[in-house]
Amino acid sequence: MNARRYFAEFLGTAFLLIGVVGSGIMADTLSGGNVGLALLANAIATGCILYAIITTLGPVSGAHFNPAVTLAFALRGEHRWNAVAPYVLCQLAGGIIGVWAAHFMFDLPILQSSTTMHRTGANQWFSEIIATLGLLFVIFGGIRHKPDAVPPLVGLYITGAYWYTSSTSFANPAVTLARGFTDTFAGIFPAHILPFVAMQILAVFIGHVVLNWLFSDPE
Amino acid sequence: MNARRYFAEFLGTAFLLIGVVGSGIMADTLSGGNVGLALLANAIATGCILYAIITTLGPVSGAHFNPAVTLAFALRGEHRWNAVAPYVLCQLAGGIIGVWAAHFMFDLPILQSSTTMHRTGANQWFSEIIATLGLLFVIFGGIRHKPDAVPPLVGLYITGAYWYTSSTSFANPAVTLARGFTDTFAGIFPAHILPFVAMQILAVFIGHVVLNWLFSDPE
Amino acid sequence: MNARRYFAEFLGTAFLLIGVVGSGIMADTLSGGNVGLALLANAIATGCILYAIITTLGPVSGAHFNPAVTLAFALRGEHRWNAVAPYVLCQLAGGIIGVWAAHFMFDLPILQSSTTMHRTGANQWFSEIIATLGLLFVIFGGIRHKPDAVPPLVGLYITGAYWYTSSTSFANPAVTLARGFTDTFAGIFPAHILPFVAMQILAVFIGHVVLNWLFSDPE
Amino acid sequence: MNARRYFAEFLGTAFLLIGVVGSGIMADTLSGGNVGLALLANAIATGCILYAIITTLGPVSGAHFNPAVTLAFALRGEHRWNAVAPYVLCQLAGGIIGVWAAHFMFDLPILQSSTTMHRTGANQWFSEIIATLGLLFVIFGGIRHKPDAVPPLVGLYITGAYWYTSSTSFANPAVTLARGFTDTFAGIFPAHILPFVAMQILAVFIGHVVLNWLFSDPE
Repeated sequence: MNARRYFAEFLGTAFLLIGVVGSGIMADTLSGGNVGLALLANAIATGCILYAIITTLGPVSGAHFNPAVTLAFALRGEHRWNAVAPYVLCQLAGGIIGVWAAHFMFDLPILQSSTTMHRTGANQWFSEIIATLGLLFVIFGGIRHKPDAVPPLVGLYITGAYWYTSSTSFANPAVTLARGFTDTFAGIFPAHILPFVAMQILAVFIGHVVLNWLFSDPE
Repeated sequence: MNARRYFAEFLGTAFLLIGVVGSGIMADTLSGGNVGLALLANAIATGCILYAIITTLGPVSGAHFNPAVTLAFALRGEHRWNAVAPYVLCQLAGGIIGVWAAHFMFDLPILQSSTTMHRTGANQWFSEIIATLGLLFVIFGGIRHKPDAVPPLVGLYITGAYWYTSSTSFANPAVTLARGFTDTFAGIFPAHILPFVAMQILAVFIGHVVLNWLFSDPE
Repeated sequence: MNARRYFAEFLGTAFLLIGVVGSGIMADTLSGGNVGLALLANAIATGCILYAIITTLGPVSGAHFNPAVTLAFALRGEHRWNAVAPYVLCQLAGGIIGVWAAHFMFDLPILQSSTTMHRTGANQWFSEIIATLGLLFVIFGGIRHKPDAVPPLVGLYITGAYWYTSSTSFANPAVTLARGFTDTFAGIFPAHILPFVAMQILAVFIGHVVLNWLFSDPE
Repeated sequence: MNARRYFAEFLGTAFLLIGVVGSGIMADTLSGGNVGLALLANAIATGCILYAIITTLGPVSGAHFNPAVTLAFALRGEHRWNAVAPYVLCQLAGGIIGVWAAHFMFDLPILQSSTTMHRTGANQWFSEIIATLGLLFVIFGGIRHKPDAVPPLVGLYITGAYWYTSSTSFANPAVTLARGFTDTFAGIFPAHILPFVAMQILAVFIGHVVLNWLFSDPE
């Protein structure tokens, strides 16, 4: 039933953004100015919510929560092309609603626009390619070799990738867009969204070639 | 045998409150005034004890440790209505005993009443609805799709939810009541307990409708 | 073959003490005086090594690494009484060797005696009873209901119990004795060892009655 | 197909060094001078990437990413001797490329040489023996008794070993060499590489004797 799948993508992405943005606000507020401590809490909380939503919603919708992942599945012939747009719309809507829910929980103005200016430049764009490739790598490697491990793989990969990529691994166009709507710890200046998304899409095409070969059946 | 099930609910809830309140006291004492660091330790310790008690006592009593969860199971027809009151009483008693045990371990007065005033207001009430819905979401999604994962699902969800909800996710009437009995890091002013509990109960009814549909069998 | 089982108990306990004492030294050195941060690293590192040694050595020796656990198994009739003394000796020897190895790694005098005076008093003794009961609870509950989960159960229980018990959960006579041999973060003044061990042994007898009933087969 | 196996060793080691060096740079930058906090983030991120690459690439190449591990498998007769050199070359190349990728992500000069002088001396050399023995211990114990647990075993062992060994557990010649190429948090002065590698190789031979016996089939 499609309604349930679409709602799962909406709900999961909303929870994901509550996780990313809400924990960023809490961490930033409580860490006494120590950005490292704030990022640690932010990274752990994001890994936790990813594990939760992928485990519970994977069997419902595939648990993409990410237009780049939906595109990657479509390229592999494992997601119908005419179901790409509805999935992406649900993800985008869920992401923005999630940000707004986080704002309301923390008693902040609902409508915001990020003024965080440092998420740009060739180095961070390269970082987003690596981050997204790594995400696709754990998803498709997990599906190929150990499907039950996909939820911890994605959760732990992203928890780590907050630290080992300079962009803190957005790796997700719906997350990137939604984070433009918050002027808190997790925000990204709206004009810097498009290059991040472009790099994420580029990584899908690179990953399609490399990972299909790497994780194909033995000859 | 009912005695064993009731004792399991009592013991598990006691351990849960030892976990929440004890780690809050230790973390607050040792963190040198950095509330973020204290909350990180508090969140990790709570996730650890949740994983432990749900894994070991789940097969004995169902491992509710939470009147909202007991009510949700009863609404689904998976817990007998005449066993709701005994479960809830065991949970409430266990929670309070757990707080008192934590106080004695840390050489504090046993009988306390919280003076923590900041856990109130529409934003935190909304936060408790989200927190409780999320908890029911991982429990019933886990049971539906991957029952073995319920202990890590709940443990990790709550560890994260300390950060991504503004109320730090009480999400449990027995925990909320018990935390009124401690004037330490985890406390809540007694007059603020009832609205939190009301939101948690409200979330049970919302969750009953939404989650039954989302996690029902495929048509 | 007994030699292999005894060596496993020796080696595992040595690694456990390297984990506890080594990480305590590193954490204390690097945390800039923030005891909460030091304890967080200490707790995580201890959980990691426990998971590792129980997973790998469980099938060899049962992975006790703890005279209280060996005694508890003997009381249940699951460890031969004439194999208790050799196990305990291997655990005690392994623990002390582990402490010495940690000292040498960190370029400290090998032979030390703790001057840490705060690990005593009725509150901490009560804490050791709770801590040891909790440890036996996860071990025997795990064995009864989910044997594969015993390594993460023990690792996560102890990581949390560093925080939610005031004694930081020694819960192990071999660990307690060995920690008397180090005047670093994890040390305990030698005169305070005996009461801790007495409480741990007391908890074994309490646990024997309560847990056998709680985790017995359904009637 | 060999090309795929070799590429897996290259790619996995590259990701591993991105994990170690990238998270070291991020952590050092954000931790406000608190080295303990930086090491905690560094250790968690390294554990995360290890779990990810071993789970996904294990079935492709065996997921060595470490010349010491390749040598250990060869000594056991489980890796062909004429495939040792290609594996090691792929690991060394992957490690250096990973460091350079981390540098570019963080907008640092690509070519660097470490000036970190404190990773030397008999105590740290002893630490590397222990660290490498422990790594081989979890790998071969895991393979013997619970093969599915090897990814979390290695990830958690290393996360802990950052803390309980004084050298922070390089335990890998490819990692050690690659870390000579970065003058950031994770660097090691080039002249100190060889003794570390020598200790790691020595540990392989010690481990070969001890672990083969410890984890052999029951008689």
